[in-house]
Amino acid sequence: MPFTTKATISSFGGKLYKLTHPSKATGSEMAVNLYLPPQALSGGSRKVPLLIYLSGLTCSPENCSEKGFFQHNAAKRGLAIVYPDTSPRGLNLPGEKDSWDFGEAAGFYIDAQAEPYAENYKMETYITRDLPDALFSDEEFGKYLDGEKKVSITGHSMGGHGALSLYLKYPGKYASVSAFAPIANPVNCPWGQKAFRGYIGDGEDKEKEWKEHDSTELVRKWDKGTPLNMLIDVGTGDNFYKQGQLLPENFEKAAQEAGVSEGLTVRYQEGYDHSYYFMASFADEHVDHAAKYLGLL
Amino acid sequence: MPFTTKATISSFGGKLYKLTHPSKATGSEMAVNLYLPPQALSGGSRKVPLLIYLSGLTCSPENCSEKGFFQHNAAKRGLAIVYPDTSPRGLNLPGEKDSWDFGEAAGFYIDAQAEPYAENYKMETYITRDLPDALFSDEEFGKYLDGEKKVSITGHSMGGHGALSLYLKYPGKYASVSAFAPIANPVNCPWGQKAFRGYIGDGEDKEKEWKEHDSTELVRKWDKGTPLNMLIDVGTGDNFYKQGQLLPENFEKAAQEAGVSEGLTVRYQEGYDHSYYFMASFADEHVDHAAKYLGLL
Repeated sequence: MPFTTKATISSFGGKLYKLTHPSKATGSEMAVNLYLPPQALSGGSRKVPLLIYLSGLTCSPENCSEKGFFQHNAAKRGLAIVYPDTSPRGLNLPGEKDSWDFGEAAGFYIDAQAEPYAENYKMETYITRDLPDALFSDEEFGKYLDGEKKVSITGHSMGGHGALSLYLKYPGKYASVSAFAPIANPVNCPWGQKAFRGYIGDGEDKEKEWKEHDSTELVRKWDKGTPLNMLIDVGTGDNFYKQGQLLPENFEKAAQEAGVSEGLTVRYQEGYDHSYYFMASFADEHVDHAAKYLGLL
Repeated sequence: MPFTTKATISSFGGKLYKLTHPSKATGSEMAVNLYLPPQALSGGSRKVPLLIYLSGLTCSPENCSEKGFFQHNAAKRGLAIVYPDTSPRGLNLPGEKDSWDFGEAAGFYIDAQAEPYAENYKMETYITRDLPDALFSDEEFGKYLDGEKKVSITGHSMGGHGALSLYLKYPGKYASVSAFAPIANPVNCPWGQKAFRGYIGDGEDKEKEWKEHDSTELVRKWDKGTPLNMLIDVGTGDNFYKQGQLLPENFEKAAQEAGVSEGLTVRYQEGYDHSYYFMASFADEHVDHAAKYLGLL
């Protein structure tokens, strides 16, 4: 099914497309922004690799497109970026809009199993299958994107959890991963517990089930012989970090204990907060991290 | 009178301060954001020069701080940026909030003469006197800013009009000027006519009075021996440009007719619109333009 183009905006020599498309996984029309760098649009036959950016709680595809400044370096390196939405929208499920940290705009990049979310909140399937399939096979956009190459993945906060956990759940699928202020150990923080309770359930097996989506648990199973190719930035002035919502130390410790910390870089950035000001400050470096593993550097 | 600091945010190695301070000119508390680059804060004795950024209609100091991307290159070049507000706020003057393009957030960077705006809408005096005086003499921030050096000025849309017209009204005051999509000939466009009618008046002498604030008129009086040091970018996909609100061609023609186009660069950027996506794409270059004339390049 094709994409519907709502707007085309010039940005750093390339184009940002505001799109919607139907997803089988979510059973809904999904909003998504796609940035194509000048290298893709210059009329040559060069296809560019893709970086997936997963947004945080409350965000839509717009926030990072406007304030993250990933396009700045993507335009230099010749990298496309896709900004998916953070949940299906417009379903009007009971309770879906009651909280800012659960339901609409808070899909947590997992496939929900609990009612009333099980039918539509299939964000893991959407991000790992429906969206890339739609992009690479699309008549208009597919011709610019290198579907033969692996894609890379990054994200912020809830999207940092999404990027790390999907990377770890699907070894070999992504060329690299990075994250800003990720919810790195969701089973042990209020945001993650609320999400997993609501989307997965609160039954007897909850501990085992929740851990299947927790990066700190998943990294313990990573193959010792394979470098992680993983960059994480956390601001030391981030209130959510201070409140124990992110827990990157738990993740680092688990990776070290499991002997899989080769290729893992975790940086604590002095004084930075949780905002897009933080991300914008290091976006060039995260794009370079992806560009390196996508063969562009 | 000192500044009140509402927030301090790390950005590109420097700090963005969200401030308010009282202005005599406007008789009100004014919001303003100040960015200090890492070179100012590194603990050395180096004072940095200042670039004033004037925002467009409807904007506050926040918009460009978040979406304009000026901090990216200001941090490299060692340049402070001040983002003033677009009008006094909270006065509750009659009619002040009736339009998005007049009154609150639409002060047009002139000193109003007509009622009920004459007392408070003194944005020209605020930008050229109160704000720089307050910054350079401030106990906290003054020590980081090089008050011996001229400042440079830039702006977007209504703020592009502000930057160009103040630069031309005060020869020698500013080291350089640049503008994105400026309202370059306000006496001949609906936005400018509405603003000048409301702030200056609609009397017999209106033609002469309005022209004193019109960059296309002001440039005719520029000293032939002095290069303009002026960079203007306009997007060819900008709907306000197409609707005749900006009229950069009139400005160019006037400068050429007056024989003062030395040092004037006007660029028509293919396909770009009026948004912050456009500004962000060329912000590095506008910061370099200022940095060059401030002795940083």
